[in-house]
Amino acid sequence: MAGSSFGNIFKISTWGESHGKGIGVVVDGCPAGLNLCEEDIQKYLNRRKPGQSKYTTPRSEDDMVEILSGVFEGKTTGTPISMVVFNKTQRPSDYTQIANYYRPGHADYTFDEKYGFRDYRGGGRSSGRETIGRVAGGAVAALLLEELGIKVNAYTKSIGNVSIDYDRFDLAMRDSNPVSMPDEEAAKLAAELLDNKMADLDSVGGVIECVVTGMKSGIGEPVFEKLDANLAKAIMSIGAIKGIEVGAGFEVATKSGSNNNDSFTTDSEGNVIKRTNYAGGILGGISDGSDIVLRAAVKPTPSIFKEQKTINRSHEDIDIKIKGRHDPVIVPRAVVVVEAMTAITILDMLLLSMTSTVSKIKNFFKE
Amino acid sequence: MAGSSFGNIFKISTWGESHGKGIGVVVDGCPAGLNLCEEDIQKYLNRRKPGQSKYTTPRSEDDMVEILSGVFEGKTTGTPISMVVFNKTQRPSDYTQIANYYRPGHADYTFDEKYGFRDYRGGGRSSGRETIGRVAGGAVAALLLEELGIKVNAYTKSIGNVSIDYDRFDLAMRDSNPVSMPDEEAAKLAAELLDNKMADLDSVGGVIECVVTGMKSGIGEPVFEKLDANLAKAIMSIGAIKGIEVGAGFEVATKSGSNNNDSFTTDSEGNVIKRTNYAGGILGGISDGSDIVLRAAVKPTPSIFKEQKTINRSHEDIDIKIKGRHDPVIVPRAVVVVEAMTAITILDMLLLSMTSTVSKIKNFFKE
Amino acid sequence: MAGSSFGNIFKISTWGESHGKGIGVVVDGCPAGLNLCEEDIQKYLNRRKPGQSKYTTPRSEDDMVEILSGVFEGKTTGTPISMVVFNKTQRPSDYTQIANYYRPGHADYTFDEKYGFRDYRGGGRSSGRETIGRVAGGAVAALLLEELGIKVNAYTKSIGNVSIDYDRFDLAMRDSNPVSMPDEEAAKLAAELLDNKMADLDSVGGVIECVVTGMKSGIGEPVFEKLDANLAKAIMSIGAIKGIEVGAGFEVATKSGSNNNDSFTTDSEGNVIKRTNYAGGILGGISDGSDIVLRAAVKPTPSIFKEQKTINRSHEDIDIKIKGRHDPVIVPRAVVVVEAMTAITILDMLLLSMTSTVSKIKNFFKE
Amino acid sequence: MAGSSFGNIFKISTWGESHGKGIGVVVDGCPAGLNLCEEDIQKYLNRRKPGQSKYTTPRSEDDMVEILSGVFEGKTTGTPISMVVFNKTQRPSDYTQIANYYRPGHADYTFDEKYGFRDYRGGGRSSGRETIGRVAGGAVAALLLEELGIKVNAYTKSIGNVSIDYDRFDLAMRDSNPVSMPDEEAAKLAAELLDNKMADLDSVGGVIECVVTGMKSGIGEPVFEKLDANLAKAIMSIGAIKGIEVGAGFEVATKSGSNNNDSFTTDSEGNVIKRTNYAGGILGGISDGSDIVLRAAVKPTPSIFKEQKTINRSHEDIDIKIKGRHDPVIVPRAVVVVEAMTAITILDMLLLSMTSTVSKIKNFFKE
Repeated sequence: MAGSSFGNIFKISTWGESHGKGIGVVVDGCPAGLNLCEEDIQKYLNRRKPGQSKYTTPRSEDDMVEILSGVFEGKTTGTPISMVVFNKTQRPSDYTQIANYYRPGHADYTFDEKYGFRDYRGGGRSSGRETIGRVAGGAVAALLLEELGIKVNAYTKSIGNVSIDYDRFDLAMRDSNPVSMPDEEAAKLAAELLDNKMADLDSVGGVIECVVTGMKSGIGEPVFEKLDANLAKAIMSIGAIKGIEVGAGFEVATKSGSNNNDSFTTDSEGNVIKRTNYAGGILGGISDGSDIVLRAAVKPTPSIFKEQKTINRSHEDIDIKIKGRHDPVIVPRAVVVVEAMTAITILDMLLLSMTSTVSKIKNFFKE
Repeated sequence: MAGSSFGNIFKISTWGESHGKGIGVVVDGCPAGLNLCEEDIQKYLNRRKPGQSKYTTPRSEDDMVEILSGVFEGKTTGTPISMVVFNKTQRPSDYTQIANYYRPGHADYTFDEKYGFRDYRGGGRSSGRETIGRVAGGAVAALLLEELGIKVNAYTKSIGNVSIDYDRFDLAMRDSNPVSMPDEEAAKLAAELLDNKMADLDSVGGVIECVVTGMKSGIGEPVFEKLDANLAKAIMSIGAIKGIEVGAGFEVATKSGSNNNDSFTTDSEGNVIKRTNYAGGILGGISDGSDIVLRAAVKPTPSIFKEQKTINRSHEDIDIKIKGRHDPVIVPRAVVVVEAMTAITILDMLLLSMTSTVSKIKNFFKE
Repeated sequence: MAGSSFGNIFKISTWGESHGKGIGVVVDGCPAGLNLCEEDIQKYLNRRKPGQSKYTTPRSEDDMVEILSGVFEGKTTGTPISMVVFNKTQRPSDYTQIANYYRPGHADYTFDEKYGFRDYRGGGRSSGRETIGRVAGGAVAALLLEELGIKVNAYTKSIGNVSIDYDRFDLAMRDSNPVSMPDEEAAKLAAELLDNKMADLDSVGGVIECVVTGMKSGIGEPVFEKLDANLAKAIMSIGAIKGIEVGAGFEVATKSGSNNNDSFTTDSEGNVIKRTNYAGGILGGISDGSDIVLRAAVKPTPSIFKEQKTINRSHEDIDIKIKGRHDPVIVPRAVVVVEAMTAITILDMLLLSMTSTVSKIKNFFKE
Repeated sequence: MAGSSFGNIFKISTWGESHGKGIGVVVDGCPAGLNLCEEDIQKYLNRRKPGQSKYTTPRSEDDMVEILSGVFEGKTTGTPISMVVFNKTQRPSDYTQIANYYRPGHADYTFDEKYGFRDYRGGGRSSGRETIGRVAGGAVAALLLEELGIKVNAYTKSIGNVSIDYDRFDLAMRDSNPVSMPDEEAAKLAAELLDNKMADLDSVGGVIECVVTGMKSGIGEPVFEKLDANLAKAIMSIGAIKGIEVGAGFEVATKSGSNNNDSFTTDSEGNVIKRTNYAGGILGGISDGSDIVLRAAVKPTPSIFKEQKTINRSHEDIDIKIKGRHDPVIVPRAVVVVEAMTAITILDMLLLSMTSTVSKIKNFFKE
C-alpha cells in the first residue's frame, strides 16, 4: 500500500534507496509565491550529510539537491516541487554480505517478510538516507513558516547519560559541535562517551528535543487530527525513534493535577499566556499559542562491530560481525529530520485550520 | 476541517458531545460476515462507564449502545455500522459556571480560540465521553482481530509512583479492581494513593501498557504509514495522553546497541523469533511477529477541587474552585480506550498489508 | 473498504439501509458559527420524499430529520453534525420475494458477489433512500455557500424525449410540478409520457442539469483534484447516473475550436467575463468565475412491472414480475440529490482553495 | 492544496512542467515482485509522444523514460517507483508572447487567478505534457492487471462527425493510423477531416472509448467510492475532457427500463453473464464481471491559428493569433492517457476490494 506520502494540504511524497540512482521528494501543495532556491534546501541537507566528524559515516557524498519543477523565476508556482539528490556512491559489492542474513535491530527480516525480497544494498529503502527527502521537504515548510513568524528548532538533549544543562543552553552552539548539542560542555562529555563506545565496538542512543516558537493558537483538528497526534505520527515515522512525548511527557504519570495544570493569565500587552507550559503548547489537541515542545527517543545504532547472534535467510543460527562504516550514534544527524517532520506537520495543520469559522471564511472571500 | 475520522480501510467516524443528545460512531469498511450484536459492544463500553467505584464519576448513565445499521440477521453486511449511545444526563445548568472562564489543563481556551465559541456543557466535544465512539468502534475491530487469532489487551501499568510488579502479573485480575491493574497488591496501593489524592482535593497521572499477541509479520507501510507511526497517532489522539513509546521506549536513550538489539533465532517449531523484544514487535515500521508492546503516559485529571488561578473570557485574572463530579485519576477508564485505538490501528494496517506482493494478489484472485 | 465518506475539509459520512432502523449522515468539518436548525435540512429532504405525486412511491414516510450533535444555541460548533431520519416503514415481509433472485438493473447480484450476502429488504444500502444522508449533508453545504453568495440549483432538463425549452425557463416553477421541470409546458408533456409508461408497465430515463451561480474563480486543484473531476465523481456516485458532462459536454466532440473557445472580455464594471460559457465555468480544472453548468444522465427505473428474465441465487434462469411500489422515473426525486452533491463538492473545494498563495495565507494570519 | 496524487493503495504522484527540467511520476504502493523495466514504460509513452504524424506537434522530443528507484534486479520491490522524462526542448523564448494574455479555452486565466502568476512556458503545468506522468504510472498498472488477466484498451471512437463502424472494428489497426481508430476506413475519413480543419486554421473534438476485459466482479466501494464514480474522476481529471459516460451513457435518458435492463443468465460453463451490457459492466457502483465500457468527450484543441478575441493581463480587449506548433485534434494522443487513468483506477479499486468479507481475509492470513 502507498505509504510514502505525508501531509494533507502540504504533502511530501518521498522515494529512493540508499544505493539506487538517487533519493527524492515531491512537495505538493506548497502555496505559490514563496521565494525558493536550491541553496535554501542545501542548508538543511548539509546538517544531515555524512562525513562531518569522526562520529559520522565518512561516505564521500556531496548530497547536492536539484530542483526539477515547481519553481519559476525564483518563486514557487503552486505546482509540485520535485527535488532530487543523485547518489554518487553505488557500491553494491560492499553489501552482498548482508544479503543473506538478518541484522539484529534492522528491518532486513521484516522487509523480506512483507515483500518477499529486498534491495539489500545499504539497507535499501530502510536506510537513513531515506530521510533526505524528508529534510528537503521540511526545508520548504520551514521557509514558509518563517514568513508567518514561526520557527522550528531541534537539538540533541541527551546522548546516553549525558544531558544538556538548560542553564548553559545556547542554540547558536548547536551546529558548532559534532553532537548537535546547544551546550558546549555537555557536547564534550558526549564526545568522550562516543569515543568509549567506539572503542567498545558499540553504540548509544539519546533524546532529541524540538521547540516551535511564534505559534498561532487554534491549530489542530479534534478528535483524531489533533496537533499532538499528527506530530506523534510524524516523529514516530522516522527510523530509530521509539518514543515521543509532548510538554511534561512521561513525567505526567507521577505528577499531581495541581502541579501539572498550567494556569492562564495575561502578559503586559494583554495577550493570554500560561504561567507554566507543562502542556507543551497543546490543549485538547489544539495549539494554545505557547511554544510547542516535544521530545523523541532515539535508539542506539543497530549496526555495531561487536559479534552478534542472528539467523540467515535459511533460518539457521549464525554469528556475525558487521563491517563497513557506521556511526556510533544516530542522534546528531537525526536532529534536522525531527525538525523537518515537525515543520511539515505544523505547516500542514496550520493551513488546515484556516476554515474553522464561517466568519473567517467570509472575510477571506469578501471582495 | 474534518478531523473526526480515523483509519483507511476500516474507518471510524465519531460524533457527539457530553451533554448533547448522544454520542455515536459510524464504523465504515468492516468486512461482511462478522457475527455482531449489541452485547459484543456493550461489554467494552461497560469497562469505561462511570459509577463503577468511588474513583469514578457517579454519573447515572447506563451508556447502552444501539446498532442502527450495517448488521443483518446477526452478521455485518459490509455497509456502515452506525452505533449510538443516547445521553440520559443532560443538565446544562450544572455547567453554566464554566461557560465564562478557562479551566487550567482543559481545552476551553483552545476551543474558543479555534471556533469562536464552544459548547461548554460538560466539556462538550472535548469531554471524555467522546471516547464512547472509539470504544464501540474498537470493539468491532477487536472481534475481527480475534477471528484471526490476534488479541489486544491494555491495563494500568502505574498510577503515580505505584507500578505493577510483573512477577505478580495476572491479566485476569485487571477487571476485578477499580484501577484496572493486573496485580492485586499494586491495585491496593494505588487505591490508597487515590484516597490520599482525593483527601488533598488533587489528582494523579499514570501509565497504560498495551500488548498485542498473535501478531502476523509484515504489517506496516514504510516510510510514513509505519505501524508504530500510526499507533503513535492513534494513542496520542486520546485526550490526556502526553507520551507514547514502543518496546524499550524512552529507555533506548541510555542503552547501548549491544543490549538493545534483539537477536533472531528460531523456536522448536522452526518459527523465527527474537531472543528479546526491546523493539516491541516492530522493526523498520513493520511488525516482526513478536508481541506489540506500547505504553501511554496519562496526565492527572485537570479538574481538581483545589483553588486554582485562571482567567475569564474577558481575560481577567480570577481564582476558581471547580465543582461537580470528577475522577481523581483518568487512567483506569482510559485503559479500554487505548485498547480500542490499538485494535482499530492494527486491524486497519493488517487489511492494508494484503497487497504487498504480486504473488499474494494473484493467489487471492485466482479461481 | 470504507467507501461511505465524501469530501476532504467538509466531509459527509453516510449510513443506513432502506428497511433498517434509519438513515443518517455525519457532517464533519463544517465551520463554526453557521445558523442551523432542523427546518433548514427538512426543506431539502422534502424535495426528495416519497408520496408527493402519482409518479412517486406512496410510501408513508414523513422522513423527519433530527440533529443529534454539532449545533449549540442555534449555531454549528465546528464539531461533527450527526443527523438521522428514523425509518417508519420496516416491512421486510414485502421483500422476501427478491431475496432469492437478482433483479435486472439492480445491485442485487453485485452485492452478493462482493459481500457474500446482502440485506435484501428494499434494496438495503443500494436503495434510493441512501441519498437521504447526501441531501441532509448537502443542505448544510448549500446554507454555507449562500453565506458566500453562491447558489446551486438543479432541475429536470428532460424526461425521455421531452426536454425543457430555455425560452420558457422559470426556475420558480420547478417545485410546483411533479417532474421538477422549470418549464410548465414541458412538465405537462412529461407527465403524459409518464402516464403512458405506467400504462405500459415500463419506466423512462432523463437528464438533470445543475447550475452554480455566484462562483469565485480559482477553485479546483490540478491535476487530479480538478473541480470538474471531483464534480464528476460526486455526481457519478449517485445511483442510476450513467453519464456526467460539463459545459458543452459531449457536444464538444463535434465542435470546432473556433466555436468552442470562449473569448474573454470585461463587463461594464471591469470584471473579467467570457462572451460564451461552453467551458461550463471551468478551465484547466479551475473555476473561472462564470456559472458552473453540468448535466447528469439518469437511467430509467430498473424496477418495472413487465415480466423480465433473470436468474435466481442458484443461477437458474427464471421469469419474474416485480411487485410493490416503484416510480416510473427516477429523475424528479434525484434533482435535489444532484444539487446536494454539487453543493458539497463546491464547498469542499472552495475551502481547499484558500491556501493557494503565500500572500493570502500571510494576510489571513496577520494580527 | 496538494492535488497531484491519484489513487489510494496504488497511488501516482506526478510533477513537472512543459518547459521545466522534466516531467515525472512517483508510483507508490506497487506490489513487490512485478517484472518491470524501462522498455515496458516506453512502449506506452511512445503512443503519446509528439512528432508521429502531420497531425501531431513536430516537437523534437524522444521522451525517454528513466526509472530512478523501486526496482531491484528487474523486479519491483514494493517501494516507490520514481520515473522521469527529462525535457530536451526548453525554449522559453517561444512562449513570451503568451505570457501577457489569456488564451481562450486555456487555463492561463484561471492559473493566474488561483496562484497570482504562472509558468507560461508552453502552458507550464497545464500543458498536455503533464500526462507523461499519468501514462508512465498507467503502464505499471496495466502490467500488473495483465498478470490478473485484465486488459484495458482505449481507442478513438469518433473525430468530429466521423465515427468508427463496429462492423469493421479491428483493435489491431489502432496503432497503424495517425488517429488511433480501430477502423481503417473511418481513419481515412478522419484524416481528411483533419486536413480540412488545418486548412481552416481550426481544430476539432472527438470521443475516446475504453473497454476493460477480463474483469472480476465485486470491484467498487459503495456509496461514494463506486467504481464508476472513481473512473469518472480519473477520466475527467484529464485536460480537455468535458464528459464521461459508462455503458449506454447519455442514451439512457431516452430509453425505457424494459430496454435498458440487462437480464442475467449463465453461459455454457455456468458463469453468470448478462444478455446485454447497457450497464457497462457496473451495477450499483460494483463491477458485475462484464466488460467495463466508458467513453470520454474530448474538446477541440483550444490553440487554433485563426484570429481570436481575448484580453491581456491588464484586462484590455485584444485580438490574437496563436503561433507555434499545435495539433488540430487532441483525441489520438489522449487515447493512451484514458487507458492509463482507467488502468490505475481499476487496479487501485481491485486492490481495495480484497477486504470485503471476513472469510476471504481469514483465508488470506491462514498459515
